[in-house]
Order: sequence, then C-alpha cells, then structure tokens
Amino acid sequence: MARAQIEALRKAMREAGVSVCLVPTADAHESEYPAEYFEARKYLSGFTGSAGILAVTEDWAGLFTDGRYFLQAERQLAGSGITLYKTGEEGVPSVEEELSVRFPEGGVLAFDGTTVNRRFGELLGKLAKERNGSVLLADLPGRIWKKRPPLKMAAVFPLKLCYAGESRREKFSRVRQQMGQKHTDLHVVTTLDDIAWLMNLRGRDIACNPVFLSYLVLSMERAWLFAGEEALSEAVKRELSEDLVTVRPYGAFFGELPALCQGKTVLADSRKVSEQVWEGLSRAKTIVDSPNPSIAMKAVKNPTEEENFRKAHRKDGVAVTKFLYWLKKNIGRTPITEGQAAAYLETCRRKQKNYLGPSFPTIAAYGANGAQVHYQPEGEGALLSPEGFLLVDSGGHYLEGTTDITRTVALGPLTKGQKRHFTAVLKGMLALGDAKFPQGLRGSGLDCLARGPLWAMGLDYLHGTGHGVGYLLNVHEGPNGFRWRQPPEGAETAILAPGMITSDEPGFYLEGEYGIRTENLLLCRKGEKNRYGQFLEFEHLTLAPIDLEAVDWEEMDGRDVQRLNVYHRQVRSALAPHLEGDELQWFLDATETV
Amino acid sequence: MARAQIEALRKAMREAGVSVCLVPTADAHESEYPAEYFEARKYLSGFTGSAGILAVTEDWAGLFTDGRYFLQAERQLAGSGITLYKTGEEGVPSVEEELSVRFPEGGVLAFDGTTVNRRFGELLGKLAKERNGSVLLADLPGRIWKKRPPLKMAAVFPLKLCYAGESRREKFSRVRQQMGQKHTDLHVVTTLDDIAWLMNLRGRDIACNPVFLSYLVLSMERAWLFAGEEALSEAVKRELSEDLVTVRPYGAFFGELPALCQGKTVLADSRKVSEQVWEGLSRAKTIVDSPNPSIAMKAVKNPTEEENFRKAHRKDGVAVTKFLYWLKKNIGRTPITEGQAAAYLETCRRKQKNYLGPSFPTIAAYGANGAQVHYQPEGEGALLSPEGFLLVDSGGHYLEGTTDITRTVALGPLTKGQKRHFTAVLKGMLALGDAKFPQGLRGSGLDCLARGPLWAMGLDYLHGTGHGVGYLLNVHEGPNGFRWRQPPEGAETAILAPGMITSDEPGFYLEGEYGIRTENLLLCRKGEKNRYGQFLEFEHLTLAPIDLEAVDWEEMDGRDVQRLNVYHRQVRSALAPHLEGDELQWFLDATETV
Repeated sequence: MARAQIEALRKAMREAGVSVCLVPTADAHESEYPAEYFEARKYLSGFTGSAGILAVTEDWAGLFTDGRYFLQAERQLAGSGITLYKTGEEGVPSVEEELSVRFPEGGVLAFDGTTVNRRFGELLGKLAKERNGSVLLADLPGRIWKKRPPLKMAAVFPLKLCYAGESRREKFSRVRQQMGQKHTDLHVVTTLDDIAWLMNLRGRDIACNPVFLSYLVLSMERAWLFAGEEALSEAVKRELSEDLVTVRPYGAFFGELPALCQGKTVLADSRKVSEQVWEGLSRAKTIVDSPNPSIAMKAVKNPTEEENFRKAHRKDGVAVTKFLYWLKKNIGRTPITEGQAAAYLETCRRKQKNYLGPSFPTIAAYGANGAQVHYQPEGEGALLSPEGFLLVDSGGHYLEGTTDITRTVALGPLTKGQKRHFTAVLKGMLALGDAKFPQGLRGSGLDCLARGPLWAMGLDYLHGTGHGVGYLLNVHEGPNGFRWRQPPEGAETAILAPGMITSDEPGFYLEGEYGIRTENLLLCRKGEKNRYGQFLEFEHLTLAPIDLEAVDWEEMDGRDVQRLNVYHRQVRSALAPHLEGDELQWFLDATETV
Repeated sequence: MARAQIEALRKAMREAGVSVCLVPTADAHESEYPAEYFEARKYLSGFTGSAGILAVTEDWAGLFTDGRYFLQAERQLAGSGITLYKTGEEGVPSVEEELSVRFPEGGVLAFDGTTVNRRFGELLGKLAKERNGSVLLADLPGRIWKKRPPLKMAAVFPLKLCYAGESRREKFSRVRQQMGQKHTDLHVVTTLDDIAWLMNLRGRDIACNPVFLSYLVLSMERAWLFAGEEALSEAVKRELSEDLVTVRPYGAFFGELPALCQGKTVLADSRKVSEQVWEGLSRAKTIVDSPNPSIAMKAVKNPTEEENFRKAHRKDGVAVTKFLYWLKKNIGRTPITEGQAAAYLETCRRKQKNYLGPSFPTIAAYGANGAQVHYQPEGEGALLSPEGFLLVDSGGHYLEGTTDITRTVALGPLTKGQKRHFTAVLKGMLALGDAKFPQGLRGSGLDCLARGPLWAMGLDYLHGTGHGVGYLLNVHEGPNGFRWRQPPEGAETAILAPGMITSDEPGFYLEGEYGIRTENLLLCRKGEKNRYGQFLEFEHLTLAPIDLEAVDWEEMDGRDVQRLNVYHRQVRSALAPHLEGDELQWFLDATETV
C-alpha cells in the first residue's frame, strides 16, 4: 500500500499525461538546504534526509540517496511502497540508469524546471529523446501539495567592510574582468551564496545558510538584483543604487530575463543554473558555459576574513569547551538526552558576541546513533549513559565567519576497539592538518593522510574527508576539498591555495555500535618558498580539546603524540584567557601535554 | 661561435627554404632510448642526456630539457652557442611558447615526420598555420650527418609461454575484443614494447630495451608485422604464420600502410604514432584516436609473470648484495672508480642465470655527481673516497623479468645533514611501500606518502616518485606511476590495479654536494575485501639491504623502524640461502633487526 501522497501524485501524473515524475531535493538555487516551500520530496516520500531524489511511475517509486542516509532512509521508507536505491553501492543503478530502463517508449518525463540544473536537465532530455519521449517542465507535486509552506523572504542585512574585507565594487570589478577574459558581456548568477558574497549582503531565507532568495544579472556596467521587495531596506537600496544595481522583484526574474539577455554573450554555469533559467536564456547570442568566477574568488579568504575567522573560532572554541565541561561533569549525574546536549551547546554559542545561529543542524548522536553519519533524532533523541561515545558535529555563524567542528566524547568506559578506532581517526586528522606540500597540489592528493591509519586496518569511511567553508555563508562550499574519489558528476577537488579553508574530518562508523568523527577546519597558508617551489601548510582554525580519555596510547607513535601536543598547546593559549574557575581547571587538564 | 654541426644544419635549412628546424630526441617508435641512427639531437648539440629537444633558426639555437639534466646540459652546452631552456622552471617557456615567438610570418617549420608523434605534430602544424606558415616533414639533420650510424636489426628471439604466461593468440584476442568495442577493424601499433609484448618476441635493437624495430598492423583476423628480414628465424616465421601473421620488410611499412588502411576504421594512438604514420592513414575511413589496448594490458602482470618477477628479483638481490659487500670491504683499501663500481655490479649480475643485460645504463655517482639525477660519467668517472655517498641506480633484464633498484651507500663517515636526508628519503620509500588503500585510487593519490618526510623539511625532488616497469621490456612503461604533478602533455597516473609493478624511488639532491635515492619495485596485489571495498597493498619485489650506517635513528619513528625491520626480514629470508661465508655474515649484520 503506497503512501497517499504518492497516489495523489500518480493521479496528477495521469491527468497531465506524464509517465515519470522526478522530484529532486533542490530549490531554484542549487541550495544545500531547500526552503520548506521546496521540500516536495520530503512531503511525498516521508524521508527527511538532506539528499535524495524521488522518481515515480504508475507502478513503481524509487528513492535514490547516498551512504550518509542509508540507515535513516531504510527506516523512514519502511512500508511506504518506495524502493530505496543505495547510490554508490556496488551494482546499484543511478537514477538515470534506472530511468533508462523504466522510461516507456514515447513517454513524458516531468519535473519542476527550477529545481533541476541544466547539466542534469540536458541528460534527462537526452534520456527521454532516446525513447522518442519528451520532457515537461511542470511542478506536479505543487498541484497536489496541500498546505504547502509559502516562500519566505526575510529582511536582508549588509555585511560591513570590516567583516567582508572587500567592497561590492571591487568584487564586481574582479568578476567583470573575468567576464571580459571569457569574451562575455552578461553574467547570470542564481546560486545564493555567490550572490550574497558578491553583494556583501546576508539574509536568512534558507535554514542555516545566511543567504536570501534572489537572482543576479551582471553586465559590464550595471547589475539587476531580483529579490524580495520587503527584504531590502531603503538604506540598502540606496547603497545598491550607488553601485548601479537595479533592484527588481524576485518574482519578475523569469519574465525579465529574456529581454536582459537578448543578443548578449552570457556567462552561465550549467551546473548551477536551472533548466528553467537555461530556457530563459534562449534569446542570448551565445551562452558561455563556465563556472561562476565568484566560486573560486570566495573560496580564497582575504586577510580581513582570515583574521575574523580566527576570532570566530576563538569564540566558538570557548562555547564548545564550556559544553564539553558541562557534559563531562553531568553525565551519570543528571539525565541528559541527545536533544538536551545539542540545546546546551546552542546556549553556550548564543552567549558569544556576534553569534547569529547554527551553520547546520547540530548532530548529537549517542552510541549506535553515531553510526548514522547525518543523524537527526526525532524529538529529544536517546538518553545518554555514562559509557561509550557521544558524537557532536555542530557549527555556528558569527559576523566574523562560520565554524564547523566535530568532537567525539567518551561518556564513560570505552572498549579497546572503540579506543583503537578513535585513535586511528585522530591520527588521520592530525596528519592531514600537519601536511606541508608544494603549491599546485589538489586536496585529493592529501586525502590518503587522513584515511591512512584506517586504511591500514582495512577500514574506511563513506564520505569525503573535507569540504570548503564559506565566510558567514554556506558551511559546505566548493571548489576546495579533501576527497580522492571523484564523484560521478562532481568536480575534482581544487588546487589548494593560501586563504582556502577546508574541513578535515575523518570518521569511523560501526553500524549498530558507534560512530566517531573528529573535525577541525584548516586554513591553508604560505610556508617557505625555495628552489623546490612555494610550500603551503595548514593552520588549525578550530580550537577545542580532543578527548584524551578516548586515546589508545599504544597506537600513538612519536610524531602522533607530538602533533596532538602541539595542537593542544595552541588550543590552550587561545582559550585559557577566556575560561575561569572549575571550567579552566578542567580545560587545563584536558589539554595537558602528554 | 656556434658548433660546426649547427652551422651545417643552417646551411641545409637555407637550401631547403626552412626557417625553423626542430630536432627532438626520438626514434620512429617513441622509444625512450633511440638507436644511434636516431641520435641527431646529440650529434648536433653535443648534449648527451636522454631527453631534450633542439630548435634551430638562422640566428638562434635552443635546447629544452628537464630537471634531470640541468647540470649536465649546462656543462655540455657551454660554448656551443646553444641556449639552455630549463623546462619546468618558473618563467621558462616551453619549446612551443618559444617558437610561437621566434617563428617568422610565412615561415617553414621542418622536422623528421617519423620522430614527432601526431599529438605534437598537430600542435606544431597549428603553430605554423597561425603565422601563415607551413610544415615540412623532412629529415634535414640526415642530409648533413656524416658517418651516420646505420639502422641495425638484430636477431629476434621468442619468449616462451613459461615466461610470458599468455600466448600470442590470447593477447591478439583480447586486443581484438577492444578493437570491436571501439567499433574499429584495424589497429596500427608502432611502439616497440607494445609490439614485443603482443608478439611474445624480444630483440636487441634499442639499447637496454629488449625490443626489435618493427611496425604492426592488426585486423580482426590477420596481422602484418614489418620487421628486419634477417631478424626473424624460419622457426619464428613458421610460428607467426600459424597465428596468421604475415611478415613484411621493415622498410616496406610506409609504402604498404595506405593500402592496408584503405576504407578501414583504424584504432591508432595519436600520442604514440608518428606524424608520418598519421599521414599514411589518410585513406582510412575513420581514425579512432585512443590508447593502444596493449598499454593497459601489459601493465597488469599475469600470475606467471608475477612469480617470475619474484625469481628475477631474488637473483638480482643476490647480485646487488655481493656488490655491496665488495664495495664496503674494499673502499679505502683499493682504489675504485665509479666506472669500476658499475662494472663490478654488472659482473655480479652476469653470474646470475638467464641474465640478459642491463635494463638501463647504470648510474654510479659519487658525492656531488649524485646530485645529477641521471649522471653518466665520462670515462672511468670519479675515484671513490671512504666518505660520503655512492648512489647506484641499476637494473637488469632476466628471462624472468626486469629489475630496477637504487641504493645509496655510505662509503665512510657521513655528516648529520647527510644522514637526515638519507633518512627522510628512506621513510618516504617505506611509507609508500607500506600503503594499503581501496581499489580505485590513482598512483597520484599516494605520492604524498613518499614525499611527505622531505616536504615536512621544505625539501623535494624534481622527478616523479615512480614509473611502471615492463616484463623483460622497457624499464619505464605506463600507464601506472606515482606522480602527483601531471606533466603538461602527460597523462594522469593510472588507477592502481593488482598485478601492476611500479617503482618507489624518492630522492634528495643537494647541488654540488651529494645525491640520495632509494628505490624498490612494488607489486600491487589484493588485500582484504570488505564493506569498504577491495583493499590493495604492495609487495616489495626488490631485495637488497638498505644501508643502516646512513640512518639517523633520531628521525625514525616507531612505525618507520618497524617498516624497515619487516623489509629487512623479507630480504634476509629470500637471500640468505644464496649467500655464504663472509658475504653471508656481512649480509646478516646488514639486515639485522634494529
């Protein structure tokens, strides 16, 4: 018996003459966390994970998601009549592969054209054409979705120069220079973090991402910002007007785009703009399909941003340390749930100056829950016991930047196996953080340092080792990363450059038992320059104790111990001045040289 | 005052109306060591290194070579009037870049079409066309070269199945399967190691490469081998005839190619076949430009080859150990030159069964000479003193496979710096050899393990960490390697697969002081398979002591010492049964657990 929502969709499909309906997890801006308005896949399938694509035919429905969500999806899809496809597992077809089997001759494939990027849309178009079928850009789930949440556009706020480090005009000028180099005269930007970075504006329309719903069209002299009419204050509008930015309503974008691009040579990124936007560019003279110049620019933090990031991490480290002290002190004495732990951490962060909110939903996963890489409890979550691990992955937005930190905490006695796994993860995290290497290397070339101790034991983790982090922007941003395995549609990790911030987060997950992850953010910076080239190295931005009680000292070699001590000395000198009393005493013990 | 040879070339250029003459270091088969007949670049420039390209105009001559040869080229080009271009150094133009400046409007660019591969030839054609010029395929150096050595084609010998492990027919059948998959019906092979591997034949026409001058054309049913008429015995010809291979004279290839490819869909690799061959394919229906299938096939050794390789390395290890014993015993007592050391090593190898000759010219480089990565002494070379390092890089061909080993030997007291550098190189070599990793990883993803200890000191080496090794074939073969930096025209290192043999040879070179390199060959083999995938690991094939007297024990961490001990235990149990008396006693001391 299928879910009522799926049956309703099938009815709408029959009415529209549609054979296959595809429902991705996406908004109109390739955002990682679509606003509630765009959560059609969740509404239809009941699966709440942040990644996955639903495909529905008359007699079949499949959900395709990746390793982070296998356990959660299995649970949430049970009894729904929807088949789970574990993407990346041996022998499991991708959604395209499965559709190429299920799509009927002469059929119609429907999807909301604003929620599928051009690259994927093109592929789907080919797939339909091969079977003499066609594509219909239509939001079928929207037709049957009762009580769909409305699109919200909250007030936008400007990011001052003391935070951004570079003016809007300077950013425009750098992008226009690249537009010129590519012989283009118009640039269409639809990704919200690119727009926010370029405009030095921030918002709160997307959960955890301080961006605002908008489209941007940039010519060599002017710009058009399509945004919520209520969202921009008069002061902001005046500022924008001075920089020759015309403000237009968000809803006017698709109507006005054809006239704006008429006869122009347009720079647009087919991996970022939607199929609907691509259709809107049909009157352009040419489309130059190339990554948004702002992607590489915002990945390299300027000196102001770097210095601010250090401040943000000092504050975040104080908050996390206070949380760790509270947790260690109260476990076994007071009942604490996963939800309460997460809430207490949020309380600690909220006491820090210029804190704006979490950079992603906090993961506080106890015991076996930790083996679900992106675990989200229902309600208060599990009750913690004074044994085993609590994995806490969290982050905050500050005016001074964005944080992302994971600590795995021993709540009481650990087994030998738990300690060995914790130690392998720790050694990998420290080895990557300690890397020194010549300029030119990609993040993929260092991934083996983080994974090496686990690989040596025949173990691994089914996620990347690290992602780029935005400045008061998305906590996951490209193009830098640590990831040896190139995802099928994804790009190779970028060449590492000074100013890039990348997470370093190896983990280990034993299904049904426990999960371990230790994560610091690393700032890439210049080392020495000599006849071998310009060397680069990393600075640990993240500042919080690593649980010494979870370490298996037999597995720690001389240089592992040294790396741990060097890191703890850095944490200690940064945070000690901001702690006092029992907290300070505990902190000094927790960061003691071993 | 320019060299007479260059002046003679300029005269020939004027006579032919040529503005620029390009003389690469290459034969008609992309061989690493061109036969003497093809050594025009050496004849013209006086530079004897194994890589480099000479370009000559009326008033300028430039030689472009890479980091291995900077010192040697500087010395040999002094006073020649030829400018040295250090390829890969910051700000140094490539030959194409320099020519794009120096090529005159409407000029004529000449080169021997058999010595330039299609990929490079195409680029040169574009370069000339951009200046409204043209390309002339003509061997101008050949016109002025007095006493040019003749092309030699020595007797070819068959490789028995007990060595090859796979019959010619089976190899043909595998290649034809791939020809079919690429919808081609003819395949042109011009690289001699591909031909030798496919044919299970070996020769001695190229120094150190046991191959024979030939071209091969393979259809879905038949094959045509163009080779020296005297080179093939009646027995071999009969064997070939049974496998439907028609033997034709080497010199008939360019005449017969057009008829053979007439109307066919031809599989040919533009990075391997020459511009002259490409021209010869003009009557083909289509050319499918794709790597020779045999490249990937021969890189993966079959079980027979693997087992033979182990035997070859046991013999080679005995030879190298005897050499090391002799060296350690006689240094300071008897005068020894670099040349005598190399000769003694060759004597030791020659005593081994089924030894056929060196797999490349032995490098025996004492002291500062070791800093020249591919040092070749003139005459007897330097006299060794009982101090500092002797670097010995050598290898042999056996019926059971090809070896390549480098050991750096302390001839007496070492400085602290020498020991530290030796130890960093050793740690890197051992760390890479000890890697365990999931299938799917490329060699580039492990390079940081070999370089890491040097990088940590702000040091590096200007060559790849490792190359593939053929089976009684070229000691340098693709597509596997350990090399993070992708060369401009080169391919990314291959995905590592069980059966691949790759060298692991980090080094350190201090100009004017000393050179260090430690090299083992690693056989990739399967490790455990579990939910994280199929793990792969390496087996050290190379068996010879590493000089414990050169190790700085303070720099050796627990796992470094453990790796060294494990390796020495392997060496000991493999070689001890083949040594006796004083040699054995010395060997047991040299491989003692520390």
